[in-house]
Amino acid sequence: MAKQCTIRFLPGDVSVKVEPGTTILAAATRAGVFINSVCGGDVVCGRCRVIVREGNVDEDSPHFLTREEVREGYVLACEARVASDAVVEVPPETRLHGEPVSPESQVPYLADISRLLRWKTRLTPLVRKTYLELSPPDLDNNLPDLERLEHALRKTVRCEAFQTSLPVARDLPGALRRANWRVTVLTAWRGPVAEIIAVEPGDTTDRHYCVAADIGTTTVVCHLVDLTTGRTFGQAARYNSQARHGADVIRRIIYASRGAEQERQMREAIVSDVNELVGELCETYDVTVGDISLITAAGNTTMIHMLLGLPVENIRREPYVGAAYHVGPVRAAEAGLRIHPRGMLYCLPSVAGFVGADISAGIFATGLAKSDELRMLLDVGTNGEIAIGNRDFLVCASASAGPAFEGAECSCGMRATDGAIDHLRLSPADGSAECSTVSLARPVGICGTGFVDLVAEMLRIGLIDKTGRIHPEACPARVREDEGGQLEFVVVPAEHSGSGRDIVVTQADVHNILRAKGAIYAATSVLLKALSMTFDDLAEIMVAGAFGSFLNISSAVFIGLLPDVPRERLRFVGNTSLAGAKLAGLSHGCYEEVRRIASACTYIELSTHPSFMDEFVAACFFPHTRVELFPTVLAELQPQRER
Amino acid sequence: MAKQCTIRFLPGDVSVKVEPGTTILAAATRAGVFINSVCGGDVVCGRCRVIVREGNVDEDSPHFLTREEVREGYVLACEARVASDAVVEVPPETRLHGEPVSPESQVPYLADISRLLRWKTRLTPLVRKTYLELSPPDLDNNLPDLERLEHALRKTVRCEAFQTSLPVARDLPGALRRANWRVTVLTAWRGPVAEIIAVEPGDTTDRHYCVAADIGTTTVVCHLVDLTTGRTFGQAARYNSQARHGADVIRRIIYASRGAEQERQMREAIVSDVNELVGELCETYDVTVGDISLITAAGNTTMIHMLLGLPVENIRREPYVGAAYHVGPVRAAEAGLRIHPRGMLYCLPSVAGFVGADISAGIFATGLAKSDELRMLLDVGTNGEIAIGNRDFLVCASASAGPAFEGAECSCGMRATDGAIDHLRLSPADGSAECSTVSLARPVGICGTGFVDLVAEMLRIGLIDKTGRIHPEACPARVREDEGGQLEFVVVPAEHSGSGRDIVVTQADVHNILRAKGAIYAATSVLLKALSMTFDDLAEIMVAGAFGSFLNISSAVFIGLLPDVPRERLRFVGNTSLAGAKLAGLSHGCYEEVRRIASACTYIELSTHPSFMDEFVAACFFPHTRVELFPTVLAELQPQRER
Repeated sequence: MAKQCTIRFLPGDVSVKVEPGTTILAAATRAGVFINSVCGGDVVCGRCRVIVREGNVDEDSPHFLTREEVREGYVLACEARVASDAVVEVPPETRLHGEPVSPESQVPYLADISRLLRWKTRLTPLVRKTYLELSPPDLDNNLPDLERLEHALRKTVRCEAFQTSLPVARDLPGALRRANWRVTVLTAWRGPVAEIIAVEPGDTTDRHYCVAADIGTTTVVCHLVDLTTGRTFGQAARYNSQARHGADVIRRIIYASRGAEQERQMREAIVSDVNELVGELCETYDVTVGDISLITAAGNTTMIHMLLGLPVENIRREPYVGAAYHVGPVRAAEAGLRIHPRGMLYCLPSVAGFVGADISAGIFATGLAKSDELRMLLDVGTNGEIAIGNRDFLVCASASAGPAFEGAECSCGMRATDGAIDHLRLSPADGSAECSTVSLARPVGICGTGFVDLVAEMLRIGLIDKTGRIHPEACPARVREDEGGQLEFVVVPAEHSGSGRDIVVTQADVHNILRAKGAIYAATSVLLKALSMTFDDLAEIMVAGAFGSFLNISSAVFIGLLPDVPRERLRFVGNTSLAGAKLAGLSHGCYEEVRRIASACTYIELSTHPSFMDEFVAACFFPHTRVELFPTVLAELQPQRER
Repeated sequence: MAKQCTIRFLPGDVSVKVEPGTTILAAATRAGVFINSVCGGDVVCGRCRVIVREGNVDEDSPHFLTREEVREGYVLACEARVASDAVVEVPPETRLHGEPVSPESQVPYLADISRLLRWKTRLTPLVRKTYLELSPPDLDNNLPDLERLEHALRKTVRCEAFQTSLPVARDLPGALRRANWRVTVLTAWRGPVAEIIAVEPGDTTDRHYCVAADIGTTTVVCHLVDLTTGRTFGQAARYNSQARHGADVIRRIIYASRGAEQERQMREAIVSDVNELVGELCETYDVTVGDISLITAAGNTTMIHMLLGLPVENIRREPYVGAAYHVGPVRAAEAGLRIHPRGMLYCLPSVAGFVGADISAGIFATGLAKSDELRMLLDVGTNGEIAIGNRDFLVCASASAGPAFEGAECSCGMRATDGAIDHLRLSPADGSAECSTVSLARPVGICGTGFVDLVAEMLRIGLIDKTGRIHPEACPARVREDEGGQLEFVVVPAEHSGSGRDIVVTQADVHNILRAKGAIYAATSVLLKALSMTFDDLAEIMVAGAFGSFLNISSAVFIGLLPDVPRERLRFVGNTSLAGAKLAGLSHGCYEEVRRIASACTYIELSTHPSFMDEFVAACFFPHTRVELFPTVLAELQPQRER
């Protein structure tokens, strides 16, 4: 492992050890130090300004900073990468308002957004606003109202034809005259056609927002994006409230297929989750719901079906076909979403019944489809999805992992909100935990990345063996039986927790994690085998997912979630599903590219593959039955064994 | 006037005199003999078979007839043209069921329809039905339902993209499986995009109908068209029930502009008129309303606005602009029309506030825009509309004529239904009338063409003078004063009428006709003057309109409605507005052509033209103040004057 750098954050004097090359933003998040980064790390908001007091950082040409600020040591935390031990001051303005931006969006492989923003003319959102000052009609120019509007619009909006729905046409004469012929026109991209969806009085182009949504089985995340500048204001997230009807998509489908009432319940659950998040974003960022005229949504096939109200029952039955993998733009209100009354919902396209729009979006956002070298994208969600390819071909597959990596269905699991343990180390001496938590709050639970670290540490100190069984003798003071006789390990005792209750991990939780990582590792192995490849053929493995925090790659390898390849070939890329949805919202070119990717992608069914069960069983060990596949883990565990 | 031929119809032994070249169908209608012609004279149904027992007719190569039938003397009444006196037998099958087809659609200049029908592949209706037998999904072909459907559809329906609304996508999985993957798909033309509007179980392609509507200020006419064969089943017509709120568009606009309630009343009036006619057609021709998935509508700008619920108030205010002259296809249900619940309404495009879709449709249907020579199209409705042009240019103008030519607002006026006097002659001796009536019924009123004949005859026998004043002395037995002291002429006394009441024409009626014809003649003169042309520059003047019957061109010239040019340059072309709407429904190429025509057409405002009032005043004489403009009329009237 490369030498780690210690970064000390002022004024709170919180230190964290990170690998060189980590951004200061990622380091701060890991240290639980809040840095105001409204764009989520896209290098577009310029809000995450910090001052490097000591030590060295690497950064590209500085953005958003004055010459004088650069002299004073200001850098953008999302751009500057740690090169040595350093002392970093977080100035007051960077500590202001807002909730912590979860790092799941902070390490995006998203040159495209910055590129889009540098050439501002390329910002072509799926819903556009155009301000027009029309000349009123006279005898020499007596075009009717609609054609007058279209004529003026044609200079800005390039399309084969305009389309207008009856309510807009009916309202137009009054709208134009009341506004004294100065109006803002909202047009929605429908391929060769632009639909005039609304006409607003005056110039409203500075209030033009999109919500990009990643609708996961377990977690729903929404970003609020300014469509005029491309900047992200911030995010809101919550657990998918369908979860009460089942933890994974199969159980949800079974529930929804019981009848019209159940189908409606499931649809309303997800729709109201998105509505709640939109409301939360509006309140936090002082945006009116009527100024949001666009929602882009990525997510797995079942979630997108349910959002749109499409029947899901055939997805789980052989041959596993959905109702539609791409439904064109629809009126958001028609799906029950509360934004601008005539705003639009664009759902990104899925690839197959169990490879959703999240992976199409991720392939696009990571640039996988344009890569010269062979790469893998591994999206770890409740359903794990895998894509392998380069500019010449794309294949994908899926594996059901369960919600453990999203902090759900574990006794003390939670999302990466205030007080979630996102990273930790266990003392080999007494098993006591050194935790970092989101927002530096007192710990109240464990999120996905926390569990990955926790299980790796338990393995490392011998608290669990390779089958996942807890060994009380390794740490007798902290292991006990619960009421049902199940072993559990107290990670944080009640007196140090924020909830006043012990934070524990149970034997069942560990087995949950084991099965989840086993399913994902097995799926990647079988997919490679089906392609007659090995991990060594991959130039890079990109790990995406709604983990809720920055994934510790070393821990992920240690437990056998990720293969034991040279670390520089493993990269955590954050929530690429959301990144893809956001890019699509900002540019119809990106949206069309995601569509092309979805149709170019070949789906491989793994569940029927003869070796899948064998691989799964073999992968349900820490790190693996064949430990020789994990030489670095073996090297670290060997001394313990010999002890 | 060319020598007339006497055609005697058997078995009823009814005779009629017509000019050579008249079709037998037109002659029969004129004689009130009912001939079953479901297509309205488009040479497409083959139902109007009659047997020529004596005399000669001209016909092209016979359609729809066997060799043996040809030997027996069978001809199609709509194709065979009178060449001599003749005896024609109407066989029983040709006399069967149905209402009389009004001849307003029987003289179409519509080579295009026959052409379309001969090359059946060119029938590309705005709404298409495609029957598909899909292979059910399996593991090797696991396209989702919608993409499976689109993939199969792509072989038949050529478009850049498909579009599907949420309700159709939601219903699709169930619909496909219930129908065992054998379905008929309805797609609607939206330019580069085809919208999948409905998916029906099984093969319903043989039940696929369109209603083509001509929505006039005074008369609403609908044809029922079979979209699979292109055949017209028949028509239904009624007065526009908005008439209770004003006879012309200006009065209707004023009423509708009073408030939302009045606007709603006007919209509902016209919508329910069309719905009534659709219902009538369904009943008559045994068609289910759900099998009509398309309505195409032409009509003046105000009527199309009201049908769509667009505000009309600005049309009557300088600079006379409407809300929209072309609104793309809309769901018929959204406009309140009751056809297939997801059927479409396509309104043809208007040119200007007072030059409507009726004239765009007419220019297309008459081939004016493809003509090498300069032609004029004169559409005589409540609003007279004029187009002049050829393949190189198109100009148009309008003149408000009032509803007299549609039989409305005259004391005994009526539409051309059973018992309407559509043609007549007055005896110079005693003013007694020799009438032909629709359906040979006893006369109950006078329709538009009847009024043209009547006024011409009154002028001819000296019953009115050139100012339109009635001279009782010319026919003392039949002229009297009504209760208000107004002179009226008894055309048919009560004892011979079907209503038991006298059929009269009043002094006010004559002045109505005078002003109507004056407005139209003045408009044509001023338009020509604005273009530095005269009537002599026109190779042809085509007269269209919802007259309700075949217009007697000679009478129209005699009263000064039409210019006194050589008769072969005057042609009555029927309801070209309806013909254009029908062609557009049958072919999206035709629809797009009508759109091109509307945007290529230059509107000339006549009401502000300095010479308009002078020309109008000069034209408010029979035939004209400057009678030298009407040499043939002068020649005929001279002997009377000298008498």
